[in-house]
This record gives sequence, structure tokens and C-alpha cells, in this order.
Amino acid sequence: MTETGDPRFMRRAIELSRQMMREGRGGPFGAVIVRDGEIVAEGFNMVTSAKDPTAHAEVVAIREACRKLDDFSLAGCEIYTSCEPCPMCLAAIYWARLERMYYANSREDAADIGFDDAFIYDEIPKPVEQRSLPSMRMLDREALTVFAEWARKEDKIEY
Amino acid sequence: MTETGDPRFMRRAIELSRQMMREGRGGPFGAVIVRDGEIVAEGFNMVTSAKDPTAHAEVVAIREACRKLDDFSLAGCEIYTSCEPCPMCLAAIYWARLERMYYANSREDAADIGFDDAFIYDEIPKPVEQRSLPSMRMLDREALTVFAEWARKEDKIEY
Repeated sequence: MTETGDPRFMRRAIELSRQMMREGRGGPFGAVIVRDGEIVAEGFNMVTSAKDPTAHAEVVAIREACRKLDDFSLAGCEIYTSCEPCPMCLAAIYWARLERMYYANSREDAADIGFDDAFIYDEIPKPVEQRSLPSMRMLDREALTVFAEWARKEDKIEY
Repeated sequence: MTETGDPRFMRRAIELSRQMMREGRGGPFGAVIVRDGEIVAEGFNMVTSAKDPTAHAEVVAIREACRKLDDFSLAGCEIYTSCEPCPMCLAAIYWARLERMYYANSREDAADIGFDDAFIYDEIPKPVEQRSLPSMRMLDREALTVFAEWARKEDKIEY
């Protein structure tokens, strides 16, 4: 781990963003995951080519790194991403237990070229009823019985 | 679309959460995506069995619905999820253009049985430098040239 980040890895993330954008694979975003000074996995945005709205560079890189390391945890790894992650990718970084993040473009830069990152950042912290996404709670008493069963479950694998 | 939600679909999401938890596939979470009163796709948490930290029920359901509909947009669809989505899944719901969300358990219920949803909700809105994830910006001038090229690109597919 380096405090300052290794420019070689960020240049690789930026290069992926440029190359795959030019090839028409998706938006201009790239990411690499590094452990012990070596690239473990790379990702780039393939939302439109894979027809998968979750296929952002960071999510693609995380999934690939987990596949290579055969682990759902990336503790001990760092991510270099050509743009500040959207909330989906930022939360994925937390769930993956990545230990450090380096980014280049900002969410405002992304908004300036037409991406919704900043809008979604504004939506996430709002109370459910104030979001632009209509949302309703239902059957919570039925669902809570499943959580109670999880709490009691002795052979669960926590993550 | 219904304002109130169809309990059959939520019961299916809850049933998936219970069944797959019991089968040891992952955490106690299920989701279904509905269009025109029919289930398009189902998902359940498979983080530990698929070794994929992004394989939350909602993300799995979104990816499967996009595959079935051959589209990166789920405009016109609704999601029923057995638990309020974490920020990763909530942002994925926005990116997928889902039009309505129904949920049962809350993020607090999830926190009560040991999941980090509430913690990550608290982290997302913080300024980058105040988060528990060490984060650093670098090479932003180099990266911005790629965004400028995207802005000029005439054959881009927006999403």
C-alpha cells in the first residue's frame, strides 16, 4: 500500500477508459485492482455493450478480482479508478472490503459530460419518501421472520 | 404499475430470501422484477456462494432482467425486494431506470442482524476525506482529456 498512489496503475485505468470508449464498449471509465504492487484485475464500463446497467468499471474489476482470488473479500487490495465512483460502485468498494481508493475525474466532471453520478449522490441520503424513486414499504412483518431465522442460524457464512 | 404493490410479488421475494438462506446460498435477501403484472426476473443474495460481493438480490435480479429483456434499461419495470436496498443496490435501481420500488425489511432491520447497510448509508454522503475508506485524487488532468473526448464523440451510446 502506498499513501500517494502509483501513477502507473492510474495511467492504466485511464488508458482502459480511453481505449474501451473508442472501441464503443461503453462510457469512458476504467479501473484496476492492485495487491502487493501487482494488478489483480482490470475493468471498464460495459453498460451498453454488455447491456448491464451494473457493469461499471469498478464493479467489473471487483467481480473479476474476486473470481481470480476466489474470494468474496478483497481485503488487502486497492482500487485505482479513472473517475470518482458513483454510489453503486462506492458501496461495492465497501462491500468488497477494498482498503484504499485512488480516483482521477470527479463526480462533477462526470455530471458535466452527462452522467447521473451527482444526481444519485443527492438521492441516496434522502428519506425514502422524498426520493424521485417512488418507494413503498409492505409486508415487513412477514419479511422480519426471515431475518430472525438468519440471526438464529448457526452455520451461516458472514460477509 | 400499482400504487399499493401486489403482495404476491413481495411474498415471492420473501420466499426467495428464506429458501436461499436455508440452502446456504448467501444472506437472507430476495428480489423480483415485474413488468405489466408478470415477473421478469428473480434474484437472491449469492455473495458467499458466488464469491461476488456485488451479488446482492437486487443486482442479481437487475442483471437477469436486462439479460432477458436484452436491454440495459428496465424503464417500465418495478422491483420488489425483501429488504430496503443498500446504497449499491439503490444506485443500481436508479441506473437501471426502474420506476418503482417496494421493500419489506428496513436498513435498520438489516443492521440489527449484522449487515453493513446502515453504515454504508452513513458513509456515502460524507466528503471524500471524511470517509473511513482512505481515498486520494491523482492524475485528474490526464483523465479529464478522456471525458473531453467523450463529450465530442459523435457515435456514443448514452445510458
